[in-house]
Amino acid sequence: MTSLFTPPAGTYTSDPTFAHRKTQAVVTLTDHHGDPVQDREVTVRQLRHDFKFGCIGFELIDWVNGRSIDPEYDGALAEQWLGLFDTATLPFYWGTFEPDQGAPKTEALRRTAQWFADKGIRLKGHPLVWHTVCAPWLLEKSPAEAERLLRERIRREVSDFSGLIDTWDAINEVVIMPVFTAEDNAVTRIAHTKGRVEMMRIAFDEARTANPHATLLLNDFDMSTAYECLIEAALEAGITIDRLGLQSHMHQGPWGAEKTERVLERFSRYNIPIHFTETTILSGTPVPPGLSDLNDWQVTPDQWPSTEEGEEAQAQEVEAHYSRLFAHPAVEALTYWGLPDRNMWLNAPGGLIRRDGTPKPAYNRLRDLIRGQWWTPETTLRSDANGEVRFSGFLGDYELSVADTSTELQLRAAGEDHQQLTISGF
Amino acid sequence: MTSLFTPPAGTYTSDPTFAHRKTQAVVTLTDHHGDPVQDREVTVRQLRHDFKFGCIGFELIDWVNGRSIDPEYDGALAEQWLGLFDTATLPFYWGTFEPDQGAPKTEALRRTAQWFADKGIRLKGHPLVWHTVCAPWLLEKSPAEAERLLRERIRREVSDFSGLIDTWDAINEVVIMPVFTAEDNAVTRIAHTKGRVEMMRIAFDEARTANPHATLLLNDFDMSTAYECLIEAALEAGITIDRLGLQSHMHQGPWGAEKTERVLERFSRYNIPIHFTETTILSGTPVPPGLSDLNDWQVTPDQWPSTEEGEEAQAQEVEAHYSRLFAHPAVEALTYWGLPDRNMWLNAPGGLIRRDGTPKPAYNRLRDLIRGQWWTPETTLRSDANGEVRFSGFLGDYELSVADTSTELQLRAAGEDHQQLTISGF
Repeated sequence: MTSLFTPPAGTYTSDPTFAHRKTQAVVTLTDHHGDPVQDREVTVRQLRHDFKFGCIGFELIDWVNGRSIDPEYDGALAEQWLGLFDTATLPFYWGTFEPDQGAPKTEALRRTAQWFADKGIRLKGHPLVWHTVCAPWLLEKSPAEAERLLRERIRREVSDFSGLIDTWDAINEVVIMPVFTAEDNAVTRIAHTKGRVEMMRIAFDEARTANPHATLLLNDFDMSTAYECLIEAALEAGITIDRLGLQSHMHQGPWGAEKTERVLERFSRYNIPIHFTETTILSGTPVPPGLSDLNDWQVTPDQWPSTEEGEEAQAQEVEAHYSRLFAHPAVEALTYWGLPDRNMWLNAPGGLIRRDGTPKPAYNRLRDLIRGQWWTPETTLRSDANGEVRFSGFLGDYELSVADTSTELQLRAAGEDHQQLTISGF
Repeated sequence: MTSLFTPPAGTYTSDPTFAHRKTQAVVTLTDHHGDPVQDREVTVRQLRHDFKFGCIGFELIDWVNGRSIDPEYDGALAEQWLGLFDTATLPFYWGTFEPDQGAPKTEALRRTAQWFADKGIRLKGHPLVWHTVCAPWLLEKSPAEAERLLRERIRREVSDFSGLIDTWDAINEVVIMPVFTAEDNAVTRIAHTKGRVEMMRIAFDEARTANPHATLLLNDFDMSTAYECLIEAALEAGITIDRLGLQSHMHQGPWGAEKTERVLERFSRYNIPIHFTETTILSGTPVPPGLSDLNDWQVTPDQWPSTEEGEEAQAQEVEAHYSRLFAHPAVEALTYWGLPDRNMWLNAPGGLIRRDGTPKPAYNRLRDLIRGQWWTPETTLRSDANGEVRFSGFLGDYELSVADTSTELQLRAAGEDHQQLTISGF
């Protein structure tokens, strides 16, 4: 294996004007004969961002599968979800995905993924390997058998969802994987014996074999130097990390500008695009700083309310955090870890939708950004004698319509993007 | 390169009876004709432990080189040093070893090393690569030239001291090396570009080339999972870590049994013998826990006194810490970070000798252990008809004397150690 560590190309600089997210589109339209579509009205409509504004879609699985216990609430939630996000993370925790060996919930997940895909939502699976929520029945297997089953399960999920889900958190929280003591589990046992590098190799190799076109992430909550050392170990071992996953659960208080900038500076050095995979920002009291494992914070929803003051602070912090990350050229995704307060991890008031289904200020503030300030307004242009139209917009996917026909345009190059498009049926 | 990560052979268990440090020696003595030395009085005297009870020897450099500003104090200190320790760490910080390019303090260090060696003291050099106390003149060099000079300096020191100092902290504190921001320095610059693994490779490769028989350590203060990830990265990269260096400066309070046992459990997994390279236990008030870099704790000696209560607590903690590490089979060295309070790092009351030169209780307590409870008392035996003598003792180096002649015996095998020795001049 050859080391994949590359010297930093330079220091990335945040740009609050978002120039790296925008382009001047120069589009030449031709009909199906190859002739320019001259002097016609062309309507330009943004479909989604190039940047992935994501959220978990866990709460909609029951509803999509017709098993919702509160269909009215969930139906409204689905609308709220689609009103803000364009990328969904779906859960593949082994322990809940296959609670009984041999009976994985493939169909329920496939139906959910398809529901999102039909609405133009991009998808990610989370996670293929993790020590928490691990299948309990694995503990009865021999180490060799447990590893074989782990490898098999990675290949199975990645194959079964290929074409529908092609982005995966290949492995989660490797930093603590071999020394995790809160709960005995088969993955920690394997990691303890094989070491962290081999665990990463198992996850990436098996997933890559099952789907050579998959985008594979290494994901962790540990923002200390430990994660840097782990990344360097993986690169040294010749493991291709397609995207670097950074969690940013802020249950103990917002990161703020300084920590966020420092994290971005440290982790962008690897020249691997960064996904902020798990973001939570509270609208209530933070967890005390001393706690080392958030899972030890056991309270009921009533004990941890969303407050008016907290909601305003959350809205401000959500706006600041999204703005900081959208401004940094190394970041290409930001996934919020749960839209509603209902069913939220730890019963935290970390959603953007209250328990009663009404949006918090943060929801509206974020919508103003993602679908407002950072969104290219729908425009009608007129093509010139060469069939050319020009417009400025955010990088992303667009629909161009002429009369009753339309075609899709993908803008990926910041600065200026020249494209030739055929409008058929014309 | 092949990964050198090996699955843990099993869990090491601490043994408070120190059975792994002791042996039953069965020694057959022959004269220079090969005939058994029958029915003679044989005196057995332990010279030093197999375990390395070390201390820094920094404070004695001026005195050995005839430049002491308080020769009486330093002369007494040298006696106190030799009365307790058997292994010395000498300083090779580039910035102080070669403050002006081309004028390294090789001779002063060689004289000091020789002084220790003449007294049977084992030696270690510290450190070949570190970002702190780095040569300031390196900052003016180009990155390529700085790396060339770094490589050259490693080879120079290791070659110059070969045969006298054959154990080195090859590289120090790699975990934070590329992200160290307290002080601009050439080593951090190189590490930022090349990454941690390549820095380790530079240090180990150059030192190994200069002295293939050297014992090379990776050394760090970071006991978090970051150090585990770093070690796994090094092993993955095929870097042979001869010994694992763990610092244990306890300026913020004693580690205690639980942390120590957990550290031992986590770091003994790599099947690499462990050196506790830098231990400090205070006899005064600890530094507040919030401080992330101890170097930010700036006080005068008067502001940080050694107290009577603190000295008693220090003695207890020193005894407990040494006992825990001596009981663990993976540990083979423990170096105390400074015998006297005078000249101690941060002006901390962490010495075993007070500023006035008198020993603290911890000095006596430690002497009771190292040269008392854990020391094989001098014994006179009588050889049998086969020239055989038997005695129980701690692993280490011994002198066996018959009449006026003597020879050295090295006991390394715990349990039972059979040896044949020739007593010459007999």
